[in-house]
Amino acid sequence: MRMERTLITDLPNHIEHSVKIAGWINTRRDQGKMVFFDIRDASGTVQGVVLPKSAAFEAAKEIRSEFVVSIEGVVNKRPENNINHNVQNGDIELEIQAIQILSIAIDLPFEREAEVNLDTYLDHLPYTLRKGKAQEIFKLQATIIEAFRGSLRNQRFIEFQAPELVGTDAEGGAAAFEVKYYYDKKAYLATSPQFYKQIMVGVFERAFTTTKAFRGEKHSTTRHMSEYATLDFEMGFIEDHRDVMATLETCIRHVIAEVTKKHTDTFKLLGAELPLLPESIPIFKLQEVQEILETKLGMKALGEPDLEPEHERQICQWAKKEYNSDFVFVTHYPVSKRPFYVFEDEQNPGFTKSFDLLFRGLEITTGGQRIHDYDVLVDKIVKKGLVPENFSFYLQAFKAGMPPHGGCATGLERITARMLNLPNIKEVTLFPRDLNRIDILLSDTDDEDKNN
Amino acid sequence: MRMERTLITDLPNHIEHSVKIAGWINTRRDQGKMVFFDIRDASGTVQGVVLPKSAAFEAAKEIRSEFVVSIEGVVNKRPENNINHNVQNGDIELEIQAIQILSIAIDLPFEREAEVNLDTYLDHLPYTLRKGKAQEIFKLQATIIEAFRGSLRNQRFIEFQAPELVGTDAEGGAAAFEVKYYYDKKAYLATSPQFYKQIMVGVFERAFTTTKAFRGEKHSTTRHMSEYATLDFEMGFIEDHRDVMATLETCIRHVIAEVTKKHTDTFKLLGAELPLLPESIPIFKLQEVQEILETKLGMKALGEPDLEPEHERQICQWAKKEYNSDFVFVTHYPVSKRPFYVFEDEQNPGFTKSFDLLFRGLEITTGGQRIHDYDVLVDKIVKKGLVPENFSFYLQAFKAGMPPHGGCATGLERITARMLNLPNIKEVTLFPRDLNRIDILLSDTDDEDKNN
Repeated sequence: MRMERTLITDLPNHIEHSVKIAGWINTRRDQGKMVFFDIRDASGTVQGVVLPKSAAFEAAKEIRSEFVVSIEGVVNKRPENNINHNVQNGDIELEIQAIQILSIAIDLPFEREAEVNLDTYLDHLPYTLRKGKAQEIFKLQATIIEAFRGSLRNQRFIEFQAPELVGTDAEGGAAAFEVKYYYDKKAYLATSPQFYKQIMVGVFERAFTTTKAFRGEKHSTTRHMSEYATLDFEMGFIEDHRDVMATLETCIRHVIAEVTKKHTDTFKLLGAELPLLPESIPIFKLQEVQEILETKLGMKALGEPDLEPEHERQICQWAKKEYNSDFVFVTHYPVSKRPFYVFEDEQNPGFTKSFDLLFRGLEITTGGQRIHDYDVLVDKIVKKGLVPENFSFYLQAFKAGMPPHGGCATGLERITARMLNLPNIKEVTLFPRDLNRIDILLSDTDDEDKNN
Repeated sequence: MRMERTLITDLPNHIEHSVKIAGWINTRRDQGKMVFFDIRDASGTVQGVVLPKSAAFEAAKEIRSEFVVSIEGVVNKRPENNINHNVQNGDIELEIQAIQILSIAIDLPFEREAEVNLDTYLDHLPYTLRKGKAQEIFKLQATIIEAFRGSLRNQRFIEFQAPELVGTDAEGGAAAFEVKYYYDKKAYLATSPQFYKQIMVGVFERAFTTTKAFRGEKHSTTRHMSEYATLDFEMGFIEDHRDVMATLETCIRHVIAEVTKKHTDTFKLLGAELPLLPESIPIFKLQEVQEILETKLGMKALGEPDLEPEHERQICQWAKKEYNSDFVFVTHYPVSKRPFYVFEDEQNPGFTKSFDLLFRGLEITTGGQRIHDYDVLVDKIVKKGLVPENFSFYLQAFKAGMPPHGGCATGLERITARMLNLPNIKEVTLFPRDLNRIDILLSDTDDEDKNN
């Protein structure tokens, strides 16, 4: 009878019994005639030992780090003086009776847990993603996205699939990548699901999507990529942008509760602190932020249409001290800096009912109330120098009656990066794409011969 | 004090109280001096009445179908002889005291619930998606995708973000769309997350993603689109493809349980039956299916490398009768018909440890065991006439030690279509893209002047 695989984390339930485990060899240590292996699977690690008399002794000879193996053995309690309290399963040991090599590891560029620079890390992602730290980062990211979705579902939102191929780069400016579509027609990659989520307000009232956005700006920074994951929602029947902010705050609170529950070890491993989130996130108008920057922090800021990255860092540090919050809402960006569909504040002409959410110095969310009146919207399109005809599909939603609505977009990689205090967005993106790289450096693919 | 909005579904809890609701006008009926409105929000519908003496009488005059309104009124029980047992809230009526028009509807092309042909439906999606039937289809689709994810999480899978911009059309054949990347370099749209999910087996053992795939084949059928949503998972330490099939079957069972729990009304509305899923889905080798087709169903099929669409329909009808199952697994497709990374069956040389899952006559899933040995994989790449160098990034995973693994890809639109017995995939895709259409017909965008 074939023995079922036991997960390494479950071994303590099998003391003095035979088990089969499967996984990767972390390390091999030869000690006299005995061979010790640290073995890992997705659930954890355990030490195994091959004794000289073991039938597995021959097979063990050729096994090195990263070999994939299936092992049968007996789970033994360790004697008191051999217990290692600092590692998982430090009080047991697997006495190995048989080893089967499932796959050999060849040509490893460096040790799995080696600290390498970012370029080397990115060059070898299929291997470097196996580092403990990388595994933890992306498990936490999976928790973030699911907690975000879960909170929205709890708040009556329905998920939808936003299209990523779009017909025109109607808004311009955002540098959409061009796609060679059928019969040499042009299509574009979506720079955001904005128009579609607004259309979905007419269908579901509250709609969300977790999708990709593509931006072709020639940024080479620690916070930009050409493809990124965006958590987008849009909701109808709002009073103003503050309803959107309240919904987002509920999501953020749930995300933090979930990562706190499941990933405190990850925070420890990465030396990051759990985010500070007071009873309510402080809210300032852009102009108020600029006044604080000038009067309290001695920076030049007033009169600018937007915040510089350094402004965002400074106001967040200040808010952390003053409000015990790692988050700050900034509202009322000027009309000139926001897209045509953003709602102008009747009480503050020239400024919009828009907001950014800053988290530990970085903008992670942009949102606001949208225009819902057809005539006003067409007028704004024209005023931005755009052509209403190019928006005919989108505008149908407004001809059919749209409630007051708003929404926002949160960058998954950005929230992950700030959550774990990692400086570069590329460390929190499994397979980052930028100016120079799609998996491998792009200069490497210049040679046409290699592409056919 | 501002009155809070009450959802229409909650009105029965507010009999004889004042409430505020908000939503769309479904219909208007004038009866003598009284005006009746059917009002809908995301939660349901209710009838409201404006009495001649009402302060809302003037405002009500101009209100027509699809106007977006906010209404204050009193919830009254209807007298026994006015109760309508066939509609939601048929035993109550809202006596309207004030109406505020939030947004007017202009230029509706036809009545919201009108039956229109597919092209007209697609031309007016921002409006036609508001039909009751469309709303129900896409709510059910949201349940399918979340149930799929939930089942995989329960089976120890971790979600990951697959990239959609890729560097090469390495596999060829699948007709990848070309993207104009930075500095006129070429990139491509992913035809599947295959390579990345295999890489993630090395990281998480079990990984899944819900992402988009893009295919540029010039198909014009009821089951192909250029962009579609794919539910992909991949798992390590399997015995063979049957472990993948068992995992998929668990997912499918959970999906059906969830849609049964939440959407029986949708099935009724669409005249569809709940799927038949016996204790285990019947499994046949391709050759066995062909023998059944020939001997029992009188079709030509033996010796072909694949099943024709009509074969898939016939074998499903047969299995429904014989096994009481709307699902059939077909395994062992020939090596020639499968990609290079599919595992050849040692017991059946020339045939692969691969499978399709057919659902009510349509292939909704393709999967199988993959090759995990580096040397075998490189050999297969060469044998398919491809260039191993183009796969250098992917191959790193195999150099670093890969366990035996396998996985599959399920089309979200296809499973939705068969679930509800809808003939055309475009009816279950919010914003379908095909040869001729991205939102609007592509011929309409030929004019360069309109694109700037």
